Amino acid sequence: MAVDSMVRVAIIGSTGYGGVELIRLLQAHPRVNITSVISSSSAGVPISKGFPHLTNIVEQDLDDLDIEIIARNADVVFTATPSGVSTPLVPKLLQAGLKVIDLSGDFRIKDGEVYEQWYKHPAADSAYVEQAVYGLSEVYGDEVLGVDFVSNPGCFPTATLLGLIPAVEAGWIDTSSIIIDAKSGVSGAGRGLSLTAHYAEINENLRAYKVNRHQHIPEIEQVLSDVKGEQVTVTFTTHLVPMTRGIMSTMYAKVTGEHTQEEFVELYREYYKGRSFVRVRDNGVWPATKEVSGSNYCDMGFQLDDRTGRITIISVIDNIVKGASGQAIQNLNLMMGWEENLGLGYTPVYP
Amino acid sequence: MAVDSMVRVAIIGSTGYGGVELIRLLQAHPRVNITSVISSSSAGVPISKGFPHLTNIVEQDLDDLDIEIIARNADVVFTATPSGVSTPLVPKLLQAGLKVIDLSGDFRIKDGEVYEQWYKHPAADSAYVEQAVYGLSEVYGDEVLGVDFVSNPGCFPTATLLGLIPAVEAGWIDTSSIIIDAKSGVSGAGRGLSLTAHYAEINENLRAYKVNRHQHIPEIEQVLSDVKGEQVTVTFTTHLVPMTRGIMSTMYAKVTGEHTQEEFVELYREYYKGRSFVRVRDNGVWPATKEVSGSNYCDMGFQLDDRTGRITIISVIDNIVKGASGQAIQNLNLMMGWEENLGLGYTPVYP
Amino acid sequence: MAVDSMVRVAIIGSTGYGGVELIRLLQAHPRVNITSVISSSSAGVPISKGFPHLTNIVEQDLDDLDIEIIARNADVVFTATPSGVSTPLVPKLLQAGLKVIDLSGDFRIKDGEVYEQWYKHPAADSAYVEQAVYGLSEVYGDEVLGVDFVSNPGCFPTATLLGLIPAVEAGWIDTSSIIIDAKSGVSGAGRGLSLTAHYAEINENLRAYKVNRHQHIPEIEQVLSDVKGEQVTVTFTTHLVPMTRGIMSTMYAKVTGEHTQEEFVELYREYYKGRSFVRVRDNGVWPATKEVSGSNYCDMGFQLDDRTGRITIISVIDNIVKGASGQAIQNLNLMMGWEENLGLGYTPVYP
Amino acid sequence: MAVDSMVRVAIIGSTGYGGVELIRLLQAHPRVNITSVISSSSAGVPISKGFPHLTNIVEQDLDDLDIEIIARNADVVFTATPSGVSTPLVPKLLQAGLKVIDLSGDFRIKDGEVYEQWYKHPAADSAYVEQAVYGLSEVYGDEVLGVDFVSNPGCFPTATLLGLIPAVEAGWIDTSSIIIDAKSGVSGAGRGLSLTAHYAEINENLRAYKVNRHQHIPEIEQVLSDVKGEQVTVTFTTHLVPMTRGIMSTMYAKVTGEHTQEEFVELYREYYKGRSFVRVRDNGVWPATKEVSGSNYCDMGFQLDDRTGRITIISVIDNIVKGASGQAIQNLNLMMGWEENLGLGYTPVYP
Repeated sequence: MAVDSMVRVAIIGSTGYGGVELIRLLQAHPRVNITSVISSSSAGVPISKGFPHLTNIVEQDLDDLDIEIIARNADVVFTATPSGVSTPLVPKLLQAGLKVIDLSGDFRIKDGEVYEQWYKHPAADSAYVEQAVYGLSEVYGDEVLGVDFVSNPGCFPTATLLGLIPAVEAGWIDTSSIIIDAKSGVSGAGRGLSLTAHYAEINENLRAYKVNRHQHIPEIEQVLSDVKGEQVTVTFTTHLVPMTRGIMSTMYAKVTGEHTQEEFVELYREYYKGRSFVRVRDNGVWPATKEVSGSNYCDMGFQLDDRTGRITIISVIDNIVKGASGQAIQNLNLMMGWEENLGLGYTPVYP
Repeated sequence: MAVDSMVRVAIIGSTGYGGVELIRLLQAHPRVNITSVISSSSAGVPISKGFPHLTNIVEQDLDDLDIEIIARNADVVFTATPSGVSTPLVPKLLQAGLKVIDLSGDFRIKDGEVYEQWYKHPAADSAYVEQAVYGLSEVYGDEVLGVDFVSNPGCFPTATLLGLIPAVEAGWIDTSSIIIDAKSGVSGAGRGLSLTAHYAEINENLRAYKVNRHQHIPEIEQVLSDVKGEQVTVTFTTHLVPMTRGIMSTMYAKVTGEHTQEEFVELYREYYKGRSFVRVRDNGVWPATKEVSGSNYCDMGFQLDDRTGRITIISVIDNIVKGASGQAIQNLNLMMGWEENLGLGYTPVYP
Repeated sequence: MAVDSMVRVAIIGSTGYGGVELIRLLQAHPRVNITSVISSSSAGVPISKGFPHLTNIVEQDLDDLDIEIIARNADVVFTATPSGVSTPLVPKLLQAGLKVIDLSGDFRIKDGEVYEQWYKHPAADSAYVEQAVYGLSEVYGDEVLGVDFVSNPGCFPTATLLGLIPAVEAGWIDTSSIIIDAKSGVSGAGRGLSLTAHYAEINENLRAYKVNRHQHIPEIEQVLSDVKGEQVTVTFTTHLVPMTRGIMSTMYAKVTGEHTQEEFVELYREYYKGRSFVRVRDNGVWPATKEVSGSNYCDMGFQLDDRTGRITIISVIDNIVKGASGQAIQNLNLMMGWEENLGLGYTPVYP
Repeated sequence: MAVDSMVRVAIIGSTGYGGVELIRLLQAHPRVNITSVISSSSAGVPISKGFPHLTNIVEQDLDDLDIEIIARNADVVFTATPSGVSTPLVPKLLQAGLKVIDLSGDFRIKDGEVYEQWYKHPAADSAYVEQAVYGLSEVYGDEVLGVDFVSNPGCFPTATLLGLIPAVEAGWIDTSSIIIDAKSGVSGAGRGLSLTAHYAEINENLRAYKVNRHQHIPEIEQVLSDVKGEQVTVTFTTHLVPMTRGIMSTMYAKVTGEHTQEEFVELYREYYKGRSFVRVRDNGVWPATKEVSGSNYCDMGFQLDDRTGRITIISVIDNIVKGASGQAIQNLNLMMGWEENLGLGYTPVYP
């Protein structure tokens, strides 16, 4: 492949788990050159020093954040930055003529007041929030085609929305009855040190956190409301599970009308036809998180309870791949007009 | 303490996790002598051979199952046997004049048809099922006082019912809206070999199982219906979490009437007043499973969501202690008229 | 790439961890078509039924073992079979004109008596044992070029030999002083059920096993003796560590003559020059198992103790990749005259 | 038991893992009252706030460090403080008339220069170092009887020395050949935040650390030299294992003279006769760490290799119990002239 057909990519926030996963996936992508890995806190140090698994694979030094230099050396930037950092940064990158895929939550919530209520700091410039296309690829993929700026979905919203949207759109579930019991591996807490993620505190332990207060709630509600055409409010609880990777979203809702479990399977298979990263399991089979580990898949299964009239929907992803970096690359593919699974054909690592 | 004031105890099913936990707890109980540890499959072998942690602590050989001998050497029998084994066994033990605490599910479900529907094998003799007192100690402790036969609750029902009963009894939640998302450590699957409990299959993995089909569902519904005075049906999902011990039950229900979160805390504290094994956490605090590990505590916390009108109740236990062997000893204490926490004052092992 | 340039591969023993890892790696190999996945015990069942992570990726049914059919449909066979099964099977495959890469230990030990002493069952036909080239790629890669039959090294020998051979060949360590303390993740015990690999027994546990008796000892000694030109005998202990993947071999030996730690680093870098899968870490840095997880790398580091005159060599691999399936594919590449890292360029999955 | 027969105990450093384990064990000790739990960094806060597992069990507020107040309210002080903090603190406590059991390493190394070389900060006042009795209970228990100041051994030295001393004393092993490959659970790294103990970094990972440089090396050598009557130098490597609790020390040495494996078992059983916390396993059986978890046991096993003339000795402890807080209480018992196992009769928690 000719060098000039390669897209040049810079990664800001390369020393977080989302950042190094972007590196793992992008360094094998057939149409991407990583031209800069950026971390202002560690500039000048080889990235393999802090991440020895990259020894001999990525031997670049970490760069400082300099938008002018980035603009010269890159076509696309991934911002794997904490919430609040992207708010002022992304507009500058866009103004410099770069395409941007933002992995923070700063451009996902369309209503600035709602953002500030849940995120507890000022919202981004509304013009840019408007411009950002919400990159839930299997649902909004068409809108991503050819755009310059994508706001990449959160990990919990990805697993949850992919599991709910077909039923909500079909009107098969009562949206006032939705309860989401979500569970995440500890890598979701990031690489920043905290007692919560201290090994001896969370190993052999199971903990609920941010009950009813997680900042992914407005993101889920915004999309469901959009799909439904009216305000949807959900109950949403998150748990920290003693494993490194993986998210499971267990969702409960009242079924409206008469629909069998098998019909749910068919509805979802039809909805996700042609989208290779969603795997709707056979009737009566539910996925486990390890079955998607290291890959960009979102697997799901259903159980309808005749006794209560409720459907249980179980959806799993790898939080760092489909829940972050993998989906970001899927969005890159869509932005560039490539096949959405280009460079993402990883078989899950099992066991 | 004089030897003749000691109660002589036999344990049937000593080579399962429930059985060895009974041994761990009972060998330190001030009023109990373990006179026989029984396992027909391993009779004649020292129990410390299969469980080296008991070396020099319990050096008895495992005995074969002989009711006559048990009746001579023991006053009380714990049957930590699989479901189906207790069905014919327990009546014989009772007929031989022994007191029995049964840890299987065979005598918990009062309606034989319901039992057979969920357990898939014949129900026990209804006379004995009637006789069995359901030993959820904090709720039915008074009924256990002085009786000869207690049916010990299941692990999931213990965590779940202790978390729901005060609110159901008070009429503060809509019983038609109850959804229970339960999670268990892998020891709950027992010591019998299975692919589900094979290390490389469940480590770094999270898996739902028996969705809407767990045999603990009728047990939960029977008790809630009893408390409510009308049929209660629940949605109940179980998950296997990569840790050895611990159960968390995350419960969701619509609140009826006007009740604050703080009032829930107060309601529960009042309900469990004087019952030292239930610890209702302060308003806004939720327990984690490790905080009760190795102990007989059941800890709980609440979160009321004004946006949806739903309360989230989180209840945790050690599945082998309060969910099995610890509660069985609590029931022994109540049967014998002792303090319910005698020999059970273990501080959780942390970290 | 034209279809006729593709090599057709069959995998015998597709339902073990080595087998499914071969599938994960080979299905992305640019010059391989998997034409048959074979498991006599599960023939007729889709492989994705037992391994749902392969859903939509490998949807073939498992085939029965029929050498005639294999010979028609495949050019190369991987035998990921238990020890004892390959003994009679491999000669038949070779006679049928197939190339074979055997992952069992049945053709590694040149001396049949030694084999029988450690493996406790009859040795394979010595003619075939002689024919088998021992595929420790970085050491014997030249001998593998173009051959029809490779005996793939064991997991512990791979980590250990790569860590010892350069020093032994250079005469820098006293071969009578070698002590190897090896540690393995639980996947090394395979997918067969056993109490040893039962989750609740090995989680939060660390256990030594087969101390001085592991069947990989004669394999290590055979190669070291070959390199040294005289009989080498080692002390070798294996431990089971509560993690799924990974092997670490911590090796101790007396240094002969005057050599600095840095010189060891240089010696090894020189020895492995051009072999991309061995990464000798910088002076004073030791690798951790997760830093090679999911990849074909073998990383190593050194620490020389001036106080005792001993060198500590630490070598890590992913037991299922470089310790089994990855190295087997590396051998395929060498047999076929391709680049040794073709289709194996996986960045380790971290975290 | 009359209140005035109770010993009043204060714990300094109550918010580390050693401190809370002291609380777990001491609150059930029949002759101890915990009168003060001290942590200058969290004074005024209930200890159960940071350690919710202590809810309703220990509801005291954490006290500030005030020696005068301690001296009024306590008879004995445990200093579970980091190295360097005890150096100036312990002399003041002793001068105030308190008995002290110090869990830091500050008073273990008799030679101040050696201390400073390994610990990298100034040694304690040599008069106090001299006064400190090294509390390896099974070896130096007699010297602890009735003294006022005990220096509690480190975790690695406890497992290692108990495993080596009988053979060294008997002259059965060549002390110049000793190699110690030690492995620890992550709680050994303490509660202080670090990337090393960050869940996603050490879960599913195995890492060597401080190879040849661990500050427990001079402690081990000092005692072995004392036992042997001449300078002993060892090779010692530590590894971090993905589990919370447990230490295994795998030790290798050349056997001198003719001794069978069984004779080693007998030698050790004889040596530890009457010391209930050491369990020498039957010939051919090696212990696993979980078999002592939560208890004060040190279990050991042996394997003699006729091929190499080396003995492999495997010794396991719970690092927080026998490796720290449990042994500290054992020393308290000895100081007070009580049975050494008073209040320490915990059966290991299994599984």
